[in-house]
Amino acid sequence: MDAIEFFQQSAGQWRSQRTTHHLAFRRAEMGDSEITVETLSADDPKVAEICRLHQVDPSQASGGAFVSWQGSMAWDREGENHAGETVFALVPDSDNPRTGRMLRERGYAEIVPVAGRYHMDEEDGLILITDYETMSVIERFWFANPNLRMRTSTVTRFGGFSTASFCSESRIEAEATNSASSATADTGVTTKFSSVLGW
Amino acid sequence: MDAIEFFQQSAGQWRSQRTTHHLAFRRAEMGDSEITVETLSADDPKVAEICRLHQVDPSQASGGAFVSWQGSMAWDREGENHAGETVFALVPDSDNPRTGRMLRERGYAEIVPVAGRYHMDEEDGLILITDYETMSVIERFWFANPNLRMRTSTVTRFGGFSTASFCSESRIEAEATNSASSATADTGVTTKFSSVLGW
Repeated sequence: MDAIEFFQQSAGQWRSQRTTHHLAFRRAEMGDSEITVETLSADDPKVAEICRLHQVDPSQASGGAFVSWQGSMAWDREGENHAGETVFALVPDSDNPRTGRMLRERGYAEIVPVAGRYHMDEEDGLILITDYETMSVIERFWFANPNLRMRTSTVTRFGGFSTASFCSESRIEAEATNSASSATADTGVTTKFSSVLGW
Repeated sequence: MDAIEFFQQSAGQWRSQRTTHHLAFRRAEMGDSEITVETLSADDPKVAEICRLHQVDPSQASGGAFVSWQGSMAWDREGENHAGETVFALVPDSDNPRTGRMLRERGYAEIVPVAGRYHMDEEDGLILITDYETMSVIERFWFANPNLRMRTSTVTRFGGFSTASFCSESRIEAEATNSASSATADTGVTTKFSSVLGW
């Protein structure tokens, strides 16, 4: 499986349970989200646009995805924002289709375009490493089965690990797609990390 | 890194934050534990005893570990048991030191001896697959850094995934080892999965 196949398998609607362990405080926070993933073909205009934003030749992209989500976390302030969307493009390395760059429109916490490095591991997990201005994030996504996707992420700030998160994401069957939770729009004071597959 | 090196790096005391996602109920449960790991050399009598229990020549073992833990989960009934200990032996495959069998005295949920298959992946994560009579468990352990160990596990019962768990485990420095939480002894009605590295 290469990365674009991973995202093809991710297409659809998912209900995500997320837990974040705040390591220094020894506290855990839980939340729920609904995530929608649409894969984009290599010649999709949105993919080309992301490539140009990063000054990459669009013909090098193998595809991309459009991801949107809405959710809530236990410690949210009233009106805190956990709705969002992002587009990204995958640009595999020329010598290895299982490694490459993931180009994004923007990160949840940043307003500048974000690029990460990915590789597929031997269990077909997708490892994504993204360096932001003030933090670094390592994520691993994998499928337990075609309808259960998992994700772990660790966030390093100022040289030390600050949070470790875990999501288990169950595919929502087509006939039961009308139970999305609502989310109101505002920006939380706390900068939270957002994964490329959703919050 | 081979598996015995992984457990050598695991030696010491750890404070574990654990979250279990109950997939069918869309509920999450959190808990805390203190875990102590002592590595055992290949010629330790406890390692030899486990090997004999599994009818394996003790000279094939590369070592083992003694693990004890005490903790609590949010949904515990009063007096529910999360204290325990286990001993295991590692028996690498003769042709590959990064794969092999993990032989255990007993699993948390079983009274018979338990054996699992392990392999180290390309990121030096340790994957452990254990089949019990009524369930199958896949775990991945890895170090984010020498003082932060992570673990995910998925439990399959009757052919479907029932729970997905995540632990983030921080090393307790030698000067701060006196804050162990207490745990009383009894057996919970719900059979819970216990990992080889602790609850």
